[in-house]
Amino acid sequence: MDYNAKQLQIIEVAERLFSQKGFAGTSVRDIAQEADVNVSMISYYFGSKEKLIEALFQLRMTESRSRLEMLMMASELSALQKFNVFIDSVIDRLMSNQCFHNIMLREQLSSDRTPVISEYIRGLKMRNVELIKRMIEEGQEAGEFRKDINVSLVTTTLYGTVNYAIATQDFYKIINGLEHQSDEEFQKHLRNELSQHLKNLFKSTITNEHHIQN
Amino acid sequence: MDYNAKQLQIIEVAERLFSQKGFAGTSVRDIAQEADVNVSMISYYFGSKEKLIEALFQLRMTESRSRLEMLMMASELSALQKFNVFIDSVIDRLMSNQCFHNIMLREQLSSDRTPVISEYIRGLKMRNVELIKRMIEEGQEAGEFRKDINVSLVTTTLYGTVNYAIATQDFYKIINGLEHQSDEEFQKHLRNELSQHLKNLFKSTITNEHHIQN
Repeated sequence: MDYNAKQLQIIEVAERLFSQKGFAGTSVRDIAQEADVNVSMISYYFGSKEKLIEALFQLRMTESRSRLEMLMMASELSALQKFNVFIDSVIDRLMSNQCFHNIMLREQLSSDRTPVISEYIRGLKMRNVELIKRMIEEGQEAGEFRKDINVSLVTTTLYGTVNYAIATQDFYKIINGLEHQSDEEFQKHLRNELSQHLKNLFKSTITNEHHIQN
Repeated sequence: MDYNAKQLQIIEVAERLFSQKGFAGTSVRDIAQEADVNVSMISYYFGSKEKLIEALFQLRMTESRSRLEMLMMASELSALQKFNVFIDSVIDRLMSNQCFHNIMLREQLSSDRTPVISEYIRGLKMRNVELIKRMIEEGQEAGEFRKDINVSLVTTTLYGTVNYAIATQDFYKIINGLEHQSDEEFQKHLRNELSQHLKNLFKSTITNEHHIQN
Protein backbone atom coordinates (compact mmCIF):
# COMPACT_ATOMS: atom_id res chain seq x y z
CA MET A 1 0.00 0.00 0.00
CA ASP A 2 1.24 3.51 -0.76
CA TYR A 3 0.86 6.24 1.82
CA ASN A 4 0.76 9.98 1.21
CA ALA A 5 3.07 12.39 3.05
CA LYS A 6 0.48 13.18 5.73
CA GLN A 7 -0.19 9.49 6.40
CA LEU A 8 3.54 8.76 6.64
CA GLN A 9 3.97 11.63 9.09
CA ILE A 10 1.15 10.29 11.29
CA ILE A 11 2.67 6.79 11.20
CA GLU A 12 6.07 8.13 12.24
CA VAL A 13 4.64 10.17 15.11
CA ALA A 14 2.70 7.10 16.28
CA GLU A 15 5.87 5.00 16.10
CA ARG A 16 7.76 7.42 18.31
CA LEU A 17 4.95 7.65 20.89
CA PHE A 18 4.31 3.88 21.01
CA SER A 19 8.02 3.42 21.58
CA GLN A 20 8.16 5.96 24.40
CA LYS A 21 4.85 5.28 26.18
CA GLY A 22 3.83 1.83 24.96
CA PHE A 23 0.86 1.00 22.71
CA ALA A 24 -1.66 0.92 25.57
CA GLY A 25 -0.27 4.14 27.05
CA THR A 26 -0.69 6.16 23.85
CA SER A 27 -4.09 7.53 22.82
CA VAL A 28 -5.23 8.60 19.34
CA ARG A 29 -5.57 12.06 20.88
CA ASP A 30 -1.85 12.06 21.83
CA ILE A 31 -0.92 11.13 18.28
CA ALA A 32 -3.21 13.78 16.77
CA GLN A 33 -1.73 16.44 19.04
CA GLU A 34 1.88 15.54 18.28
CA ALA A 35 1.24 15.22 14.54
CA ASP A 36 -0.71 18.47 14.57
CA VAL A 37 -3.81 16.98 12.90
CA ASN A 38 -7.27 16.41 14.31
CA VAL A 39 -8.51 13.08 15.65
CA SER A 40 -11.04 12.67 12.85
CA MET A 41 -8.29 12.80 10.22
CA ILE A 42 -6.57 9.83 11.87
CA SER A 43 -9.90 7.99 11.95
CA TYR A 44 -10.48 8.83 8.29
CA TYR A 45 -7.04 7.61 7.21
CA PHE A 46 -6.59 4.59 9.45
CA GLY A 47 -9.85 3.76 11.23
CA SER A 48 -8.45 2.92 14.67
CA LYS A 49 -5.28 2.77 16.78
CA GLU A 50 -5.01 -0.96 15.99
CA LYS A 51 -5.21 -0.25 12.26
CA LEU A 52 -2.59 2.46 12.65
CA ILE A 53 -0.07 0.11 14.21
CA GLU A 54 -0.90 -2.43 11.50
CA ALA A 55 0.03 0.22 8.93
CA LEU A 56 3.32 0.80 10.78
CA PHE A 57 4.17 -2.89 10.72
CA GLN A 58 3.21 -3.19 7.04
CA LEU A 59 5.43 -0.24 6.19
CA ARG A 60 8.52 -1.45 8.06
CA MET A 61 8.08 -5.01 6.82
CA THR A 62 7.76 -3.99 3.15
CA GLU A 63 10.89 -1.87 3.44
CA SER A 64 13.07 -4.77 4.54
CA ARG A 65 11.47 -7.49 2.42
CA SER A 66 12.72 -6.40 -1.00
CA ARG A 67 16.24 -5.97 0.34
CA LEU A 68 16.30 -9.50 1.75
CA GLU A 69 14.82 -11.04 -1.39
CA MET A 70 17.59 -9.46 -3.44
CA LEU A 71 20.13 -10.98 -1.08
CA MET A 72 18.73 -14.50 -1.44
CA MET A 73 19.02 -14.22 -5.25
CA ALA A 74 22.65 -13.07 -5.20
CA SER A 75 24.15 -16.28 -6.65
CA GLU A 76 27.66 -14.87 -6.87
CA LEU A 77 27.98 -14.86 -3.06
CA SER A 78 29.09 -17.84 -0.98
CA ALA A 79 26.82 -19.00 1.87
CA LEU A 80 29.05 -17.31 4.45
CA GLN A 81 29.17 -14.07 2.46
CA LYS A 82 25.36 -14.05 2.29
CA PHE A 83 25.12 -14.68 6.00
CA ASN A 84 27.55 -11.82 6.65
CA VAL A 85 25.51 -9.43 4.47
CA PHE A 86 22.45 -10.56 6.43
CA ILE A 87 24.18 -9.85 9.78
CA ASP A 88 24.94 -6.31 8.59
CA SER A 89 21.37 -5.82 7.41
CA VAL A 90 20.00 -6.91 10.81
CA ILE A 91 22.36 -4.50 12.62
CA ASP A 92 21.41 -1.73 10.20
CA ARG A 93 17.65 -2.36 10.45
CA LEU A 94 17.59 -2.59 14.24
CA MET A 95 19.88 0.37 14.83
CA SER A 96 18.16 2.64 12.28
CA ASN A 97 14.69 1.80 13.60
CA GLN A 98 15.25 1.77 17.33
CA CYS A 99 11.75 3.12 18.00
CA PHE A 100 10.13 0.33 16.02
CA HIS A 101 12.16 -2.42 17.65
CA ASN A 102 11.54 -0.89 21.05
CA ILE A 103 7.82 -1.36 20.38
CA MET A 104 8.39 -5.02 19.50
CA LEU A 105 10.51 -5.68 22.61
CA ARG A 106 8.11 -3.85 24.92
CA GLU A 107 5.16 -5.80 23.57
CA GLN A 108 6.96 -9.07 24.10
CA LEU A 109 7.72 -8.17 27.71
CA SER A 110 4.28 -6.84 28.46
CA SER A 111 1.73 -8.99 30.23
CA ASP A 112 -1.25 -7.34 28.50
CA ARG A 113 -0.21 -7.86 24.88
CA THR A 114 -2.24 -6.50 22.03
CA PRO A 115 -3.39 -9.54 19.99
CA VAL A 116 -2.99 -7.87 16.60
CA ILE A 117 0.57 -6.75 17.41
CA SER A 118 1.47 -10.19 18.75
CA GLU A 119 0.32 -11.66 15.44
CA TYR A 120 2.45 -9.22 13.46
CA ILE A 121 5.48 -9.85 15.61
CA ARG A 122 5.02 -13.58 15.21
CA GLY A 123 4.74 -13.13 11.42
CA LEU A 124 7.92 -11.05 11.26
CA LYS A 125 9.83 -13.51 13.41
CA MET A 126 8.60 -16.50 11.46
CA ARG A 127 9.81 -14.90 8.23
CA ASN A 128 13.22 -14.14 9.70
CA VAL A 129 13.70 -17.66 11.03
CA GLU A 130 12.62 -19.09 7.65
CA LEU A 131 15.12 -16.88 5.85
CA ILE A 132 17.99 -17.81 8.16
CA LYS A 133 17.00 -21.47 7.78
CA ARG A 134 17.18 -21.23 3.99
CA MET A 135 20.57 -19.52 4.14
CA ILE A 136 21.95 -22.14 6.51
CA GLU A 137 20.55 -25.02 4.44
CA GLU A 138 22.13 -23.59 1.28
CA GLY A 139 25.46 -23.47 3.09
CA GLN A 140 25.02 -27.03 4.35
CA GLU A 141 24.21 -28.30 0.84
CA ALA A 142 27.31 -26.55 -0.50
CA GLY A 143 29.39 -28.23 2.25
CA GLU A 144 30.34 -24.84 3.68
CA PHE A 145 28.36 -25.08 6.92
CA ARG A 146 28.21 -27.67 9.68
CA LYS A 147 25.28 -30.09 9.75
CA ASP A 148 24.37 -29.62 13.43
CA ILE A 149 23.18 -26.02 13.62
CA ASN A 150 20.25 -25.01 15.81
CA VAL A 151 18.66 -22.30 13.63
CA SER A 152 16.46 -20.96 16.45
CA LEU A 153 19.43 -20.39 18.73
CA VAL A 154 21.56 -18.82 16.00
CA THR A 155 18.64 -16.42 15.40
CA THR A 156 18.29 -15.81 19.14
CA THR A 157 21.98 -14.91 19.48
CA LEU A 158 21.92 -12.64 16.43
CA TYR A 159 18.82 -10.64 17.41
CA GLY A 160 19.49 -10.93 21.14
CA THR A 161 23.00 -9.48 20.84
CA VAL A 162 21.92 -6.53 18.68
CA ASN A 163 18.83 -5.77 20.77
CA TYR A 164 20.75 -5.95 24.04
CA ALA A 165 23.55 -3.79 22.63
CA ILE A 166 20.97 -1.15 21.69
CA ALA A 167 19.21 -1.36 25.07
CA THR A 168 22.49 -1.01 26.98
CA GLN A 169 24.34 1.43 24.69
CA ASP A 170 24.70 4.14 27.38
CA PHE A 171 26.46 1.63 29.57
CA TYR A 172 28.61 0.41 26.68
CA LYS A 173 29.75 3.96 26.05
CA ILE A 174 30.87 4.42 29.66
CA ILE A 175 32.53 1.07 30.17
CA ASN A 176 34.57 1.52 26.98
CA GLY A 177 35.53 5.13 27.74
CA LEU A 178 33.73 6.52 24.68
CA GLU A 179 31.92 9.43 26.37
CA HIS A 180 33.85 11.94 24.23
CA GLN A 181 32.28 10.59 21.02
CA SER A 182 29.34 12.41 19.44
CA ASP A 183 26.16 10.36 19.17
CA GLU A 184 26.74 9.87 15.45
CA GLU A 185 30.35 8.72 15.92
CA PHE A 186 29.32 6.33 18.67
CA GLN A 187 26.49 4.78 16.63
CA LYS A 188 28.94 4.18 13.78
CA HIS A 189 31.52 2.72 16.17
CA LEU A 190 28.98 0.38 17.77
CA ARG A 191 27.75 -0.84 14.37
CA ASN A 192 31.29 -1.68 13.27
CA GLU A 193 32.09 -3.46 16.52
CA LEU A 194 28.87 -5.48 16.42
CA SER A 195 29.46 -6.39 12.79
CA GLN A 196 32.99 -7.69 13.44
CA HIS A 197 31.98 -9.47 16.62
CA LEU A 198 28.97 -11.27 15.15
CA LYS A 199 30.78 -12.27 11.96
CA ASN A 200 33.65 -13.80 13.96
CA LEU A 201 31.24 -15.48 16.34
CA PHE A 202 29.24 -17.18 13.60
CA LYS A 203 32.19 -17.92 11.32
CA SER A 204 33.72 -19.97 14.13
CA THR A 205 30.53 -21.82 14.95
CA ILE A 206 28.60 -22.41 11.75
CA THR A 207 31.31 -23.08 9.18
CA ASN A 208 33.04 -26.41 8.70
CA GLU A 209 36.44 -24.78 8.61
CA HIS A 210 37.88 -25.86 11.94
CA HIS A 211 36.12 -29.18 11.95
CA ILE A 212 37.81 -30.34 8.76
CA GLN A 213 41.14 -29.79 10.46
CA ASN A 214 40.27 -31.71 13.60
CA MET B 1 20.40 -7.01 55.66
CA ASP B 2 18.11 -9.76 56.90
CA TYR B 3 14.40 -9.58 56.20
CA ASN B 4 11.63 -11.25 58.13
CA ALA B 5 9.02 -13.44 56.43
CA LYS B 6 6.51 -10.59 56.07
CA GLN B 7 9.10 -8.30 54.51
CA LEU B 8 10.19 -11.02 52.09
CA GLN B 9 6.57 -11.60 51.10
CA ILE B 10 6.07 -7.89 50.39
CA ILE B 11 9.27 -7.76 48.33
CA GLU B 12 8.15 -10.74 46.26
CA VAL B 13 4.70 -9.30 45.62
CA ALA B 14 6.31 -5.99 44.59
CA GLU B 15 8.67 -7.85 42.25
CA ARG B 16 5.77 -9.57 40.49
CA LEU B 17 3.75 -6.34 40.13
CA PHE B 18 6.72 -4.24 38.93
CA SER B 19 7.42 -6.93 36.35
CA GLN B 20 3.80 -6.99 35.12
CA LYS B 21 2.91 -3.31 35.26
CA GLY B 22 6.24 -1.50 35.43
CA PHE B 23 7.64 0.43 38.38
CA ALA B 24 5.78 3.66 37.51
CA GLY B 25 2.54 1.74 36.88
CA THR B 26 2.50 0.06 40.29
CA SER B 27 1.36 1.94 43.41
CA VAL B 28 2.15 1.15 47.04
CA ARG B 29 -1.61 0.63 47.37
CA ASP B 30 -1.50 -2.12 44.68
CA ILE B 31 1.32 -3.86 46.53
CA ALA B 32 -0.47 -3.58 49.90
CA GLN B 33 -3.65 -5.03 48.41
CA GLU B 34 -1.90 -7.98 46.74
CA ALA B 35 0.25 -8.72 49.78
CA ASP B 36 -2.78 -8.42 52.04
CA VAL B 37 -1.19 -5.86 54.37
CA ASN B 38 -2.00 -2.21 54.93
CA VAL B 39 -0.16 0.69 53.31
CA SER B 40 1.27 1.91 56.60
CA MET B 41 2.99 -1.44 57.20
CA ILE B 42 4.86 -1.05 53.90
CA SER B 43 5.83 2.50 54.90
CA TYR B 44 6.97 1.25 58.29
CA TYR B 45 9.14 -1.53 56.83
CA PHE B 46 10.52 0.18 53.73
CA GLY B 47 9.70 3.91 53.80
CA SER B 48 8.82 4.38 50.13
CA LYS B 49 8.33 2.60 46.80
CA GLU B 50 11.89 3.59 45.82
CA LYS B 51 13.26 2.06 49.04
CA LEU B 52 11.22 -1.07 48.39
CA ILE B 53 12.76 -1.64 44.97
CA GLU B 54 16.18 -0.94 46.48
CA ALA B 55 15.51 -3.74 48.95
CA LEU B 56 14.57 -6.02 46.03
CA PHE B 57 17.82 -5.26 44.21
CA GLN B 58 19.85 -5.74 47.41
CA LEU B 59 18.23 -9.09 48.00
CA ARG B 60 18.74 -10.45 44.47
CA MET B 61 22.29 -9.12 44.29
CA THR B 62 23.34 -10.64 47.60
CA GLU B 63 21.93 -13.99 46.54
CA SER B 64 24.14 -14.22 43.48
CA ARG B 65 27.27 -12.57 44.88
CA SER B 66 28.38 -15.34 47.21
CA ARG B 67 27.87 -17.93 44.49
CA LEU B 68 30.09 -16.01 42.06
CA GLU B 69 32.79 -15.35 44.62
CA MET B 70 33.00 -19.08 45.29
CA LEU B 71 33.42 -19.65 41.57
CA MET B 72 36.32 -17.21 41.26
CA MET B 73 38.15 -18.99 44.08
CA ALA B 74 37.78 -22.45 42.57
CA SER B 75 41.44 -22.92 41.65
CA GLU B 76 40.99 -26.50 40.49
CA LEU B 77 39.00 -25.34 37.43
CA SER B 78 40.57 -24.24 34.14
CA ALA B 79 39.64 -20.80 32.75
CA LEU B 80 37.26 -22.36 30.23
CA GLN B 81 35.64 -24.55 32.91
CA LYS B 82 35.07 -21.47 35.08
CA PHE B 83 33.59 -19.60 32.16
CA ASN B 84 31.27 -22.54 31.46
CA VAL B 85 30.11 -22.65 35.09
CA PHE B 86 29.50 -18.91 34.83
CA ILE B 87 27.40 -19.38 31.64
CA ASP B 88 25.22 -21.91 33.48
CA SER B 89 24.86 -19.59 36.46
CA VAL B 90 23.71 -16.72 34.19
CA ILE B 91 21.15 -18.98 32.49
CA ASP B 92 19.99 -20.23 35.87
CA ARG B 93 19.74 -16.77 37.46
CA LEU B 94 17.89 -15.19 34.54
CA MET B 95 15.51 -18.09 34.00
CA SER B 96 14.72 -18.53 37.70
CA ASN B 97 14.13 -14.81 38.24
CA GLN B 98 12.23 -13.87 35.09
CA CYS B 99 10.18 -11.23 36.96
CA PHE B 100 13.28 -9.51 38.26
CA HIS B 101 15.03 -9.47 34.89
CA ASN B 102 11.84 -8.27 33.24
CA ILE B 103 11.99 -5.25 35.55
CA MET B 104 15.59 -4.59 34.52
CA LEU B 105 14.82 -4.88 30.78
CA ARG B 106 11.68 -2.76 31.01
CA GLU B 107 13.52 -0.03 32.87
CA GLN B 108 16.25 0.01 30.27
CA LEU B 109 13.71 0.39 27.45
CA SER B 110 11.62 2.96 29.24
CA SER B 111 12.03 6.63 28.43
CA ASP B 112 11.10 7.77 31.93
CA ARG B 113 13.63 5.78 33.93
CA THR B 114 13.69 5.81 37.69
CA PRO B 115 17.12 7.24 38.69
CA VAL B 116 17.60 4.96 41.68
CA ILE B 117 16.84 1.85 39.60
CA SER B 118 19.13 3.02 36.81
CA GLU B 119 21.93 3.30 39.35
CA TYR B 120 21.28 -0.19 40.66
CA ILE B 121 21.19 -1.64 37.17
CA ARG B 122 24.43 0.11 36.32
CA GLY B 123 26.02 -1.26 39.50
CA LEU B 124 24.89 -4.81 38.72
CA LYS B 125 26.13 -4.59 35.14
CA MET B 126 29.44 -3.08 36.16
CA ARG B 127 30.02 -5.94 38.55
CA ASN B 128 29.17 -8.54 35.91
CA VAL B 129 31.47 -6.99 33.32
CA GLU B 130 34.28 -6.80 35.92
CA LEU B 131 33.82 -10.44 36.78
CA ILE B 132 33.84 -11.57 33.15
CA LYS B 133 36.91 -9.41 32.55
CA ARG B 134 38.75 -11.09 35.44
CA MET B 135 37.82 -14.55 34.17
CA ILE B 136 38.97 -13.72 30.64
CA GLU B 137 42.23 -12.17 31.86
CA GLU B 138 42.99 -15.25 33.94
CA GLY B 139 42.46 -17.37 30.82
CA GLN B 140 44.69 -15.08 28.77
CA GLU B 141 47.46 -15.22 31.36
CA ALA B 142 47.25 -19.00 31.40
CA GLY B 143 47.54 -19.00 27.58
CA GLU B 144 44.11 -20.64 27.27
CA PHE B 145 42.24 -17.67 25.78
CA ARG B 146 42.91 -15.42 22.81
CA LYS B 147 44.40 -11.98 23.39
CA ASP B 148 41.90 -10.02 21.26
CA ILE B 149 38.60 -10.45 23.12
CA ASN B 150 36.09 -7.60 23.42
CA VAL B 151 34.76 -8.23 26.94
CA SER B 152 31.75 -5.88 26.49
CA LEU B 153 30.57 -7.71 23.40
CA VAL B 154 31.08 -11.15 24.93
CA THR B 155 28.94 -9.96 27.85
CA THR B 156 26.37 -8.49 25.45
CA THR B 157 26.06 -11.78 23.56
CA LEU B 158 25.80 -13.83 26.75
CA TYR B 159 23.09 -11.70 28.43
CA GLY B 160 21.45 -10.74 25.14
CA THR B 161 21.00 -14.35 24.05
CA VAL B 162 19.53 -15.49 27.38
CA ASN B 163 17.26 -12.45 27.73
CA TYR B 164 16.00 -12.72 24.16
CA ALA B 165 15.42 -16.46 24.54
CA ILE B 166 13.31 -15.78 27.65
CA ALA B 167 11.37 -12.95 25.95
CA THR B 168 10.61 -15.10 22.88
CA GLN B 169 10.12 -18.48 24.56
CA ASP B 170 6.51 -18.86 23.37
CA PHE B 171 7.72 -18.47 19.80
CA TYR B 172 10.64 -20.87 20.39
CA LYS B 173 8.20 -23.51 21.60
CA ILE B 174 6.08 -23.25 18.45
CA ILE B 175 8.89 -23.05 15.91
CA ASN B 176 10.56 -26.12 17.39
CA GLY B 177 7.33 -28.13 17.68
CA LEU B 178 7.50 -28.39 21.47
CA GLU B 179 3.86 -27.46 22.24
CA HIS B 180 3.26 -30.88 23.79
CA GLN B 181 5.82 -30.24 26.55
CA SER B 182 4.68 -29.15 29.99
CA ASP B 183 5.98 -25.78 31.12
CA GLU B 184 8.46 -27.47 33.44
CA GLU B 185 9.77 -29.81 30.72
CA PHE B 186 10.11 -26.92 28.29
CA GLN B 187 12.02 -24.72 30.76
CA LYS B 188 14.43 -27.57 31.38
CA HIS B 189 14.80 -28.20 27.64
CA LEU B 190 15.47 -24.53 26.90
CA ARG B 191 18.07 -24.29 29.68
CA ASN B 192 19.95 -27.29 28.30
CA GLU B 193 19.84 -26.01 24.73
CA LEU B 194 21.02 -22.53 25.76
CA SER B 195 23.81 -24.02 27.85
CA GLN B 196 25.13 -26.18 24.98
CA HIS B 197 24.74 -23.40 22.44
CA LEU B 198 26.53 -20.72 24.47
CA LYS B 199 29.34 -23.02 25.54
CA ASN B 200 30.03 -23.99 21.92
CA LEU B 201 29.77 -20.39 20.76
CA PHE B 202 32.29 -19.08 23.27
CA LYS B 203 34.61 -22.09 23.14
CA SER B 204 35.09 -21.45 19.41
CA THR B 205 35.65 -17.73 19.79
CA ILE B 206 37.51 -17.12 23.02
CA THR B 207 39.88 -20.07 23.25
CA ASN B 208 43.18 -20.34 21.39
CA GLU B 209 42.39 -23.87 20.32
CA HIS B 210 41.73 -23.42 16.62
CA HIS B 211 44.24 -20.64 16.26
CA ILE B 212 47.11 -22.79 17.36
CA GLN B 213 46.29 -25.22 14.56
CA ASN B 214 46.10 -22.55 11.86
